[in-house]
Amino acid sequence: MSKQEPLPVLGQTDACCPGLLTAPLSTEQADQLAPVFKALGDPVRLRLLSMIASRSGGEVCVCELTPSFELSQPTISHHLKLLRQAGLIDCERRGTWVYYWLLPEATDRLAALLTRPAGDQLPEPAVGGHR
Amino acid sequence: MSKQEPLPVLGQTDACCPGLLTAPLSTEQADQLAPVFKALGDPVRLRLLSMIASRSGGEVCVCELTPSFELSQPTISHHLKLLRQAGLIDCERRGTWVYYWLLPEATDRLAALLTRPAGDQLPEPAVGGHR
Repeated sequence: MSKQEPLPVLGQTDACCPGLLTAPLSTEQADQLAPVFKALGDPVRLRLLSMIASRSGGEVCVCELTPSFELSQPTISHHLKLLRQAGLIDCERRGTWVYYWLLPEATDRLAALLTRPAGDQLPEPAVGGHR
Repeated sequence: MSKQEPLPVLGQTDACCPGLLTAPLSTEQADQLAPVFKALGDPVRLRLLSMIASRSGGEVCVCELTPSFELSQPTISHHLKLLRQAGLIDCERRGTWVYYWLLPEATDRLAALLTRPAGDQLPEPAVGGHR
């Protein structure tokens, strides 16, 4: 189930996580990062990711995910595939079922990208009165 | 320019930021949050957001954004509108131009959602050998 390489999350070519808020992204960085956010831009996938990520045992059988949705198993599997292609989760087939787990490095990187530098208060706009 | 209410970022109904990684999202939470990630799921919008967010003066004239893209100004304005509707930026018209600035509370909330609880090491999957 891991034959298909996940999309690279920003950070592989930028060792120290440049941050979305500290400098303009290059075209290449934006092209790498957008598909990851796009994968998160769907309520079913967000719920699936949160169900997988919050699992105390660290992984979840697809058979435990589908009952929470009024969707067919192929549809759920498609959403899971998109999360996997985005590098957010991985999976392994064991017998009848496929088991999924979070790749926490991916969410760590996204969190870092969206975190303001320590102690950084973004400056107020030069012309005030509208905040 | 602020007549249209932005989409509510998760956190307005959940005062203490439940986190995407700590508990399964409700359908309502996922429905609120997905459009924000969807707004980030496009390379042009990511570049625009990073250009606005990293602006030392705190705000940027649209006239300074468009030259970085091989896109028409209406197209750029459309992308900016989607970022604004997602609650990530706001803007104000002054004379000929519209000025944009980051709403850092929104990116702070997203970062918090994607951050593992302090000291939390996600448990290894019960069945090993595949990480």
